[in-house]
Amino acid sequence: MDFITLLTDFGNLDEYAGVMKGVIYSVNPEVRIVDLTHGTAPQDVTQAAYTIKASYHYFPKRTIHIVVVDPGVGTRRKIVALKLDGHFFVAPDNGVLSLLWQDHEVESAVRVENPEYFLKEVSRTFHGRDIFAPVAGWISRKVPLEHFGPETEVSSLQSIETIPAKAAPPDGVPGKIISVDRFGNLLTNIEEKTIYHLCRKYPDRLPVIKSGNLKISGLSSSYQDVPSGHGLMIIGSRGFLEISVNGGDASRQFNIHRNDSVELILESTVS
Amino acid sequence: MDFITLLTDFGNLDEYAGVMKGVIYSVNPEVRIVDLTHGTAPQDVTQAAYTIKASYHYFPKRTIHIVVVDPGVGTRRKIVALKLDGHFFVAPDNGVLSLLWQDHEVESAVRVENPEYFLKEVSRTFHGRDIFAPVAGWISRKVPLEHFGPETEVSSLQSIETIPAKAAPPDGVPGKIISVDRFGNLLTNIEEKTIYHLCRKYPDRLPVIKSGNLKISGLSSSYQDVPSGHGLMIIGSRGFLEISVNGGDASRQFNIHRNDSVELILESTVS
Amino acid sequence: MDFITLLTDFGNLDEYAGVMKGVIYSVNPEVRIVDLTHGTAPQDVTQAAYTIKASYHYFPKRTIHIVVVDPGVGTRRKIVALKLDGHFFVAPDNGVLSLLWQDHEVESAVRVENPEYFLKEVSRTFHGRDIFAPVAGWISRKVPLEHFGPETEVSSLQSIETIPAKAAPPDGVPGKIISVDRFGNLLTNIEEKTIYHLCRKYPDRLPVIKSGNLKISGLSSSYQDVPSGHGLMIIGSRGFLEISVNGGDASRQFNIHRNDSVELILESTVS
Repeated sequence: MDFITLLTDFGNLDEYAGVMKGVIYSVNPEVRIVDLTHGTAPQDVTQAAYTIKASYHYFPKRTIHIVVVDPGVGTRRKIVALKLDGHFFVAPDNGVLSLLWQDHEVESAVRVENPEYFLKEVSRTFHGRDIFAPVAGWISRKVPLEHFGPETEVSSLQSIETIPAKAAPPDGVPGKIISVDRFGNLLTNIEEKTIYHLCRKYPDRLPVIKSGNLKISGLSSSYQDVPSGHGLMIIGSRGFLEISVNGGDASRQFNIHRNDSVELILESTVS
Repeated sequence: MDFITLLTDFGNLDEYAGVMKGVIYSVNPEVRIVDLTHGTAPQDVTQAAYTIKASYHYFPKRTIHIVVVDPGVGTRRKIVALKLDGHFFVAPDNGVLSLLWQDHEVESAVRVENPEYFLKEVSRTFHGRDIFAPVAGWISRKVPLEHFGPETEVSSLQSIETIPAKAAPPDGVPGKIISVDRFGNLLTNIEEKTIYHLCRKYPDRLPVIKSGNLKISGLSSSYQDVPSGHGLMIIGSRGFLEISVNGGDASRQFNIHRNDSVELILESTVS
Repeated sequence: MDFITLLTDFGNLDEYAGVMKGVIYSVNPEVRIVDLTHGTAPQDVTQAAYTIKASYHYFPKRTIHIVVVDPGVGTRRKIVALKLDGHFFVAPDNGVLSLLWQDHEVESAVRVENPEYFLKEVSRTFHGRDIFAPVAGWISRKVPLEHFGPETEVSSLQSIETIPAKAAPPDGVPGKIISVDRFGNLLTNIEEKTIYHLCRKYPDRLPVIKSGNLKISGLSSSYQDVPSGHGLMIIGSRGFLEISVNGGDASRQFNIHRNDSVELILESTVS
């Protein structure tokens, strides 16, 4: 009993994800398909990279994760399939998987090039259907990764820019808003371990997050640590720093949006 | 072969529902998961309560329904698991299940407190993933409800406000718009049986619904009972009174929205 | 192992599709259900007709496709179940399936009239739940089509208007925008074979697409054939002519929307 998850930027208006499922089931009618999300902001490779990192490990081992956020479809960008932490991943080589191998050793990685496992006709605009879906289907049927193409070094694959885990003030940690969820919570790219590292290093200082005119001091541990309608900084459920409003919509209230800059600084608590 | 349904207010942009599925399948890879809806208005416990009441009985007996509309996550609000009408339900104790036990005797109800069935780390912002999902997974593996926590009296659980089934004019029945569907149909909280009770009691009067300036007289039995573009009052497919427009969008046309008030009155048909 | 797909205009806010799944699983708990899309524009029979035509053949043979775009629900419009190209289809008789039998012989077609296979109570507003879902469930349990109602001639069924495959200039091919996807790509109803027919017939002329003030000359084979931000004409992944912008949103950039007219002409390349 294997699982395949889909993470795309296709949205929920069109039939693109549904058609991918048809292709997968045509290869392996026994597999189980789960929509991780299709709501990634269009062509936002960085957002997808953080989503897959925060999500994949909640699935059973041997799950195959397809990530189709693919602004380079139709160009000569490569496609990669790899195994890591007991999970499989299939994605364009555009950095969308690069947060994964920061934390885990890659067990195997190949460039997906063997058309034997693609649909017979491959369009130049929808590789999700024509390549990613059937390849994942064949992986779920236990075709070894090396059948799909030549092995590749991880060091040769594309990466997205990230924040050094041990960034330190006085400069502050420069981050940005990776996504805004339906409740208006603002998800940053600053990891839990970054803030804990800082707090251990400067135990007498207070973490403060700034974005535009907004400034929030201190880390809350639940939404209700502040009065209703007030802003707070919290380690969100994905393990990253988030800005929220208790009972409200932080994005709307503070006029902060995806890709806006944030800065985490440590302030002296004695004045 | 058991089923688990998901009813949340997570929307379709984020990966939250997808991650819950990963957690459930990690507990029980054999179960089947169905999205009931993730489109509940954010934190609208009342809307979710009417949705689950109108929906659960279309699923096979023994289905486990998870309802995560949970504005109190992170507070000391309780979590409840119960069995009723042959179905299981897991939800926060905030009234979201309270319409169910108006019609059916609760067979068993417990407070969910046993961390043995939770994820190892429980966040304070996403109990859907950390508690509701694994608990439902374990129920689908036939763990008896009493293993999750102490039995509880239904009378001790939270309820939402409802309309007395036998409300009567001359005061009229005060209701409200519970939700607006994609077609602009306006769903009220006035039940079919309420209007039939009234019509039997006052057989010589005509049911009339009012909301703001809108006034519609008489109950239609299909959209086409009125000319195209005209408003009508109908018993919708959920068993509640709805306001619709034949071939149109009632919410837009009449400028009526979720939470707006409506009033059902009976008018004399002789003047 | 059979599959049922759902193509509706219900959107993703409401529980309508979820409830249909409950009904199907109550009839056949073994079947697998796939959401093809619920994002069809409300009551847009034409858009749904093109979507099912472009999608169904990616699923395994014997898949049952339910199409619920049904502005006539509650009227005396008929319901049809048919088999074609090894797939089953259940839909209102409003033309939504009519593009299918242009290309494939209908193996069997019946009017769905036998209430033995419906829910016990049939509403006049939600036949997706009360008729389409249980009928598809029973088809998946191998009930022969003729059990659902009398056989019907395809010639007696409703059709939507289409473009003659062999339309020819100097008049040009009059088309329209069938849908706009999440990326702003503009999908027309002009088929790949139409444009190829024209290009073979007039090998010394250049295909040009016009819509309002927009005019794009020449057919591209990938988005990157033009500079970033430029418009292009391409055979999209569905096999129809599309208007796109490399790295951009054609709908927004050119202010062209669903149902707008387009015209495909062939221009002389010598001046």
